[in-house]
Amino acid sequence: MIVVMKRDCEQKEIDAILARLQEMGFAGHLSKGVERTVIGVVGQTYPELAQMLEVFPGVDEVVPISRPFKLTSREFQPRDTTIKVGSVTIGGSEVVVMAGPCAVESEQQVVDTAWAVKRAGAHILRGGAFKPSTSPYQFRGLGEDGLKILTTAKAETGLPIITEVLTPADVELVARYADILQVGARNMQNFTLLDEVGKTRMPIMLKRGMSATIQEWLLSAEYILSQGNRRVMLCERGIRTFETYTRNTMDVSAIPLIEKLSHLPIIGDPSHGTGKWYLVAPLALAAVAAGADGLMIEVHPNPDHALKDGAQSLTFENFAQLMTQLKGVAASVGRPLVSSE
Amino acid sequence: MIVVMKRDCEQKEIDAILARLQEMGFAGHLSKGVERTVIGVVGQTYPELAQMLEVFPGVDEVVPISRPFKLTSREFQPRDTTIKVGSVTIGGSEVVVMAGPCAVESEQQVVDTAWAVKRAGAHILRGGAFKPSTSPYQFRGLGEDGLKILTTAKAETGLPIITEVLTPADVELVARYADILQVGARNMQNFTLLDEVGKTRMPIMLKRGMSATIQEWLLSAEYILSQGNRRVMLCERGIRTFETYTRNTMDVSAIPLIEKLSHLPIIGDPSHGTGKWYLVAPLALAAVAAGADGLMIEVHPNPDHALKDGAQSLTFENFAQLMTQLKGVAASVGRPLVSSE
Amino acid sequence: MIVVMKRDCEQKEIDAILARLQEMGFAGHLSKGVERTVIGVVGQTYPELAQMLEVFPGVDEVVPISRPFKLTSREFQPRDTTIKVGSVTIGGSEVVVMAGPCAVESEQQVVDTAWAVKRAGAHILRGGAFKPSTSPYQFRGLGEDGLKILTTAKAETGLPIITEVLTPADVELVARYADILQVGARNMQNFTLLDEVGKTRMPIMLKRGMSATIQEWLLSAEYILSQGNRRVMLCERGIRTFETYTRNTMDVSAIPLIEKLSHLPIIGDPSHGTGKWYLVAPLALAAVAAGADGLMIEVHPNPDHALKDGAQSLTFENFAQLMTQLKGVAASVGRPLVSSE
Amino acid sequence: MIVVMKRDCEQKEIDAILARLQEMGFAGHLSKGVERTVIGVVGQTYPELAQMLEVFPGVDEVVPISRPFKLTSREFQPRDTTIKVGSVTIGGSEVVVMAGPCAVESEQQVVDTAWAVKRAGAHILRGGAFKPSTSPYQFRGLGEDGLKILTTAKAETGLPIITEVLTPADVELVARYADILQVGARNMQNFTLLDEVGKTRMPIMLKRGMSATIQEWLLSAEYILSQGNRRVMLCERGIRTFETYTRNTMDVSAIPLIEKLSHLPIIGDPSHGTGKWYLVAPLALAAVAAGADGLMIEVHPNPDHALKDGAQSLTFENFAQLMTQLKGVAASVGRPLVSSE
Repeated sequence: MIVVMKRDCEQKEIDAILARLQEMGFAGHLSKGVERTVIGVVGQTYPELAQMLEVFPGVDEVVPISRPFKLTSREFQPRDTTIKVGSVTIGGSEVVVMAGPCAVESEQQVVDTAWAVKRAGAHILRGGAFKPSTSPYQFRGLGEDGLKILTTAKAETGLPIITEVLTPADVELVARYADILQVGARNMQNFTLLDEVGKTRMPIMLKRGMSATIQEWLLSAEYILSQGNRRVMLCERGIRTFETYTRNTMDVSAIPLIEKLSHLPIIGDPSHGTGKWYLVAPLALAAVAAGADGLMIEVHPNPDHALKDGAQSLTFENFAQLMTQLKGVAASVGRPLVSSE
Repeated sequence: MIVVMKRDCEQKEIDAILARLQEMGFAGHLSKGVERTVIGVVGQTYPELAQMLEVFPGVDEVVPISRPFKLTSREFQPRDTTIKVGSVTIGGSEVVVMAGPCAVESEQQVVDTAWAVKRAGAHILRGGAFKPSTSPYQFRGLGEDGLKILTTAKAETGLPIITEVLTPADVELVARYADILQVGARNMQNFTLLDEVGKTRMPIMLKRGMSATIQEWLLSAEYILSQGNRRVMLCERGIRTFETYTRNTMDVSAIPLIEKLSHLPIIGDPSHGTGKWYLVAPLALAAVAAGADGLMIEVHPNPDHALKDGAQSLTFENFAQLMTQLKGVAASVGRPLVSSE
Repeated sequence: MIVVMKRDCEQKEIDAILARLQEMGFAGHLSKGVERTVIGVVGQTYPELAQMLEVFPGVDEVVPISRPFKLTSREFQPRDTTIKVGSVTIGGSEVVVMAGPCAVESEQQVVDTAWAVKRAGAHILRGGAFKPSTSPYQFRGLGEDGLKILTTAKAETGLPIITEVLTPADVELVARYADILQVGARNMQNFTLLDEVGKTRMPIMLKRGMSATIQEWLLSAEYILSQGNRRVMLCERGIRTFETYTRNTMDVSAIPLIEKLSHLPIIGDPSHGTGKWYLVAPLALAAVAAGADGLMIEVHPNPDHALKDGAQSLTFENFAQLMTQLKGVAASVGRPLVSSE
Repeated sequence: MIVVMKRDCEQKEIDAILARLQEMGFAGHLSKGVERTVIGVVGQTYPELAQMLEVFPGVDEVVPISRPFKLTSREFQPRDTTIKVGSVTIGGSEVVVMAGPCAVESEQQVVDTAWAVKRAGAHILRGGAFKPSTSPYQFRGLGEDGLKILTTAKAETGLPIITEVLTPADVELVARYADILQVGARNMQNFTLLDEVGKTRMPIMLKRGMSATIQEWLLSAEYILSQGNRRVMLCERGIRTFETYTRNTMDVSAIPLIEKLSHLPIIGDPSHGTGKWYLVAPLALAAVAAGADGLMIEVHPNPDHALKDGAQSLTFENFAQLMTQLKGVAASVGRPLVSSE
């Protein structure tokens, strides 16, 4: 962290900052340029420290230079994290596909979809039993009944299950049924929930908040890792921008950026990332071309009858067609699809 | 809700939509223009319905026309909601000021600040015992000890207390100490928490999420009201934009907009709204000039020693000076400050 | 500018950067911390330099620390710039109001409006003869005929004129008729136009681009000042965000921020800032409460017949009512309205 | 366009709108639902009409339903536009690569780069002679001398040239040297420039403005087409969001979206889209996987000596490596690279 002083700052202002830094256990390294005096802060700094220092008289600006995330950083762990779920490895050389309905609606819907996505080559079944809903008047999921339906589909098809947990009190329940716990975009900074899933040893998929910076996202992952759970994967699912044609703007550049900054696997979700079914396939291919370790895709037997997110769900046919194209693109970037047995 | 068909849509595509609407209990009202055929959907529609209809063949666009919030809307309740907290009325003709430290750090810090803000004319004491923190390595609040300190300050000064609750499991605890429960920006779509505070009969202050639209914000308030708790006030605290000079961009226009759309009181938080102490006073005055029912302002005995948000905290002197200016501006828009006795 | 090296950078990488800096006429000031090596760049740096240095092996990040604007900065000129237009002074202790129709449509429309806004207390007449239009099929203004109509209105009422110039080739023409040249939001980075208005000695109002940072905006002003024209005022007119209820999000905090960073006068435009006539008055009051030197407001005899921007235009009655409220708010922050005599 | 009336609107308010519509040559189609009365506006509507109607008493909301762009729309012209430049066809089945330095700096730099990108398989040479620069103190390009250097490189290598034109007065000059005229992001709504390039019959590449919606972008293209120039291609180069790690956020979804909405070719620019050289290759592959008709990539002999945009420029080696990968990805989506012979 670097404290940039005003051009006309006084010596006693500089001294006050150096004293305060020492008091807090940091070393201050003074450097007087022709234009500006600058104080380098040595020690494990954190974002709030910048805010504290900004307020001192004579300070023009405080510039953080070291990244505040640690356990999640590539510097801390240079080799890729891989996460084994059943027989599938996430974060390895192969691309993993998770697919299924947005919300669990009925056993038939889920089992049919599970078979369809398995046949098309998907490796993991997704489906929401606890659903966040913008409006209190809408469908909020089947709850534990939904989890049971997912288990049935798993028993029949052998596909492991990823499903969302919405609140700390439900972690234990959902963990009994799921193979991967999903923390949704709206909960990316639900710190109590992050602590709680961090205490489990389950694989966690942490979705990016819709207005979260890369740094905030990695700091949220850091919550989970710092509780001792290292089995974390990240999921880019679109950010909020001014554009209204798409539901979100999928930040494809986040995929190679996360790979550079962190050792955690990165999954792309083109369904939420675009909100339009006809954009899902092109963005799925784009995500894999950009280096994604996997995809998360919404598939529904009858998108026009879906209780949630029909507009962004693929039919069985469209999904199967995408999987075919995907094989080619994945191979062309040296990342074969995991063979689905 | 209006379904706009493609120019070249076929009759059977139109029929399929009308059939599906009927199946779901809506009436479809067909209108063929020279350029386009349009289907009006009659009934209590909701955002997800648009997504479902979008997916039908022949549909070009689905346009929601009726607002999905209900209990929070001005149409539903034309008269202003007022909320009585101790001897103070929020949402009436007078402007209410809530002030205090970002985080509770020590009894002396809180009690000193409480006296200082009371003397300057504030009506309610703010202070965080449970603090959300972007990084897991930082100060997360004193918890129940912090709540006890707030109670001490209340006992000494008579100021009612507003404090944040972070997670559903803490609602009962925090409600034992607080006069107003605050739901923070990061939790605006923590629906379990909204349900839980909705089950109390406490006054709730719901902060706007950093990338929440006005509509999403009102729908989150709707969660609380639909649980039977009508004592809700909203708080504009800045939204996330591309600008980096300020921590957030305070959307002052949200203040008169909420007044138009809803009967709930609206509070401005220029401390989080700007993130810079030297912008707090101008934006506080702006918020009141634009019609805010109250303000929420961070004040600290020594901002340069604050454990949280020092950069946006006012000193006692700056706060007192702001209160003087505020009296003039409030009076000029016909909204006197509540006299602090 | 500070170059932050990677933890594991090599000495020869550091040497390469120091050599390159010297080659370009900068001094490099090396500082080795426990965690990181940092190189301070001494000399008049600029944004592109950061991009150039970022590419060197071993570099982790380049952090600009000195602000790239100069002539526009408060450091360069501590006292406020004031601009005299006719008998009115912009940037002094009084608040100046510019009002009139969005577009010049007819002589009667302009003259009637000019009288109405003058009677209500406005000081300067606005009106567009050359209009930017998102669609090529819409009204693009009356051109020189529109300028002549503005002159007629000026002759009758005595109000000076502000009007927009769209392209370098028109600067001379528009300057013959106008008292203040307006550079619109879409042209904030039309650098040829900035150069051209910089060569005149006319007062210039530079609107903020709809996605311009404060820094980019001041750098665009710097273009004009660096051509020798110091008579520049800035105008906050709303930025583009994710919110769709309002046309733009008026960044009220830009007003005190510009006052802190620059000596140039700052005007608020709540008409474009909100896009809704019923939000214009509250945001006008907010802008003045936050310290604006003036306002720019759209007024139309019949907003429901306006060729442009009817939705954000005030009627004569609404404008007169706003001016009355404004007097109170301006007085309460020690900034009386310029008397319109 | 649909006018949604308030629940409690009066008959005379409805009549006033119908009368005004008729006066303007539109037909109004009334439809009374149980909840709301709605007026459909029949005729060629435009965005400003919505603003005009919004202001009528009794109106709750005005919803545009038909897209305001016409000549650029897929509905107007179902088949793809292809643009022939020298022996290369843009918008056909093959992917076209344009590469070269951000700015023309010297003959050697350009000629060396031209040979390098040609050898690696690029089809068109890019290079800026007139450069927009955020700061007035920086390099603004070599002007006509730069154009001459480009011509030399073209003469030697046979590569056609794309270069930017900044202002209407330069169109004729630049058109004498260039094969494709580029209109930059900052000029996307420089309507005078759009008119001017529309009057030529040169191929035009229109970059998306950094905060332009898809609709605004297509309307800007519409300016050019409506002047009679149909040889227009679009270029996605990243939009401005809250994320600061990348220079812009490349909106990859814009690529398939443009393909759906318009018949014009769409090019991806991952250099500006990300601002970081190490993200250029992954995003280039992503763009092609998502269906781009071509790429625009910055290449420099010594990025660490580049006068502009060194941080986002590829070295010759990195570019050649990207071209190899690109062949695979393009083939896998059925879009071979144009052979560079």
